[in-house]
Amino acid sequence: MDAREAEGVNSADVFRIEQFEETRARLREKLRLTPLLYSDSLSAVSGGQVYLKAESLQLTHSFKLRAAYGGLLPRLEEARRRGAVTGSSGNFAQGLAYAGRELGVQVTVVMLERSARYKVEATRRLGAEVVFCANEFSERTARVERIHREQGKVLVHSFDDEGAIRGDGTLGLELVEQLPELDAVLVPASGGGLLSGVAAVVKQLRPQAKIYGVQPEHVPSMRVSRERGEPTYVEPRPSVADGIVAACPGRLTFALVQRYVEDILLVSENEIVQAVVHLLDREKLVVEPSGALGVAALRRHLSGQIAGRKVVVVLTGGNLEPARLAEMVKSASG
Amino acid sequence: MDAREAEGVNSADVFRIEQFEETRARLREKLRLTPLLYSDSLSAVSGGQVYLKAESLQLTHSFKLRAAYGGLLPRLEEARRRGAVTGSSGNFAQGLAYAGRELGVQVTVVMLERSARYKVEATRRLGAEVVFCANEFSERTARVERIHREQGKVLVHSFDDEGAIRGDGTLGLELVEQLPELDAVLVPASGGGLLSGVAAVVKQLRPQAKIYGVQPEHVPSMRVSRERGEPTYVEPRPSVADGIVAACPGRLTFALVQRYVEDILLVSENEIVQAVVHLLDREKLVVEPSGALGVAALRRHLSGQIAGRKVVVVLTGGNLEPARLAEMVKSASG
Repeated sequence: MDAREAEGVNSADVFRIEQFEETRARLREKLRLTPLLYSDSLSAVSGGQVYLKAESLQLTHSFKLRAAYGGLLPRLEEARRRGAVTGSSGNFAQGLAYAGRELGVQVTVVMLERSARYKVEATRRLGAEVVFCANEFSERTARVERIHREQGKVLVHSFDDEGAIRGDGTLGLELVEQLPELDAVLVPASGGGLLSGVAAVVKQLRPQAKIYGVQPEHVPSMRVSRERGEPTYVEPRPSVADGIVAACPGRLTFALVQRYVEDILLVSENEIVQAVVHLLDREKLVVEPSGALGVAALRRHLSGQIAGRKVVVVLTGGNLEPARLAEMVKSASG
Repeated sequence: MDAREAEGVNSADVFRIEQFEETRARLREKLRLTPLLYSDSLSAVSGGQVYLKAESLQLTHSFKLRAAYGGLLPRLEEARRRGAVTGSSGNFAQGLAYAGRELGVQVTVVMLERSARYKVEATRRLGAEVVFCANEFSERTARVERIHREQGKVLVHSFDDEGAIRGDGTLGLELVEQLPELDAVLVPASGGGLLSGVAAVVKQLRPQAKIYGVQPEHVPSMRVSRERGEPTYVEPRPSVADGIVAACPGRLTFALVQRYVEDILLVSENEIVQAVVHLLDREKLVVEPSGALGVAALRRHLSGQIAGRKVVVVLTGGNLEPARLAEMVKSASG
């Protein structure tokens, strides 16, 4: 973290509530205000009053659209002139493609060659160019940087970026508007963009609320980093939550998580699958495994401890192929 | 239709917009304002601007809660004293159980013995008593009437009832609020409660809009009745859209449909399954087959004819077991 960043995070100059509100004002017509749905079934299971923030119904079916818009806005003129580039085979790819289409920015996305066909197609359908690289994340990073350097395209990072975090934080503003008396929020964490944005907003507006991050046991990078007190690299094991891949938190996101987040909760692979099927069965929502982490954590860690409390579980995305969903239904009942 | 009913429908005394608004005012805190979601994929397919009314996210996951509240409100005092009874093994059972629980009415639901276990349990979970009868709809009707007669419980009909239709019409008020410039609405029809309520509201507020009902080819009772000019009994064949079972429209609903509805569109079994899978895949919504009829009809009947038009497709419910959904995914891709 360079001096300016450290100071920004520490003095909260860069992440004051007014700045999140300004971002939201610019995005209000471009985002869906996703519904906050009271859950009878999860309230009964946990003893709390549980609300689901169905960000799976966001345009592109993921919160990553917020990060993409947030990342483009501060450098929009340059991006319109020169294009934008990022590396992602997941929801950020579609988010940036969509945001670019809406804002008049030509978007290039670098993906690993092994990326699932339907993700490639979804990104192309939104008008982005897809460039393939060898199947290593380090290769992807290198290719993105080369395109940035050689072609002058604006590099947009999916989480460790002031603009992206401010975009993510717009979800926090919605929560406080939709449920002003909320007591706790559960947010899945990979690199920590959404977690840090939501935490920064909610804690500034409602300091007594507790914010929890959630990660798979197989990808505990934020949890381990907190234990060590610094961003720490942890080799991920494969997880059914395939959107949670960050081996290390970002510098900005880690600082915000340290400052605003209560705890990082871990959940098992089986608990994640059960959560996906519960949401399908009892809430009629298609939520991808990464997006269902909060439900798994609620059931495992908070049941019985939140009597009378209003708890929000953020369902971050719904991009899951029907065939995979069908397999998960089968495996959960088997 | 008795003289008073006929006059009511014809003079629209009973279904004036003010009466729907009064019902909505009484239910505002009890219902979810379900989201209206713009659909990129269906807009692209049809050439129109297509919006999905996700009533699958209503409490109890079906519009039938509106009909249940609507049916109880006008006779609430008596129902609180004596209880209420209905016959249903579908969404109306859960709707009435839920509404009864919220309004302090003891609810009894008569179901066929063969009714699916999970429907029985969902109804009991909401606090209703379930009474079984032999596997004939005529038996169910007889049992409901006997309980009404002998125990004095208030009989609540799921569609052919002024209160139920006014409850259903609250969805129409939401549509006109959410998309004032709408040009057309597609609504699934069994007995025609939702179709007639929505049509009565939307046509009174926006006469130029066109309202279409949709039925499976296997259950064309409203379509045939319109061709004959009177409520006509049509033996249903089994349909994957298992919420569409009415062999004959109601008297009130038929009169409103004759007055306000443009046409009844028919869709095939395969088109219904494709619509369910499309909604799952591209909109991340769990919609039961009966609830997806409008999407099937849009694709079959309106594609290419609605350029520039704002078309709302009402997704009426989401109560579908994960295992059945998984089977449909498999059959649609096979």
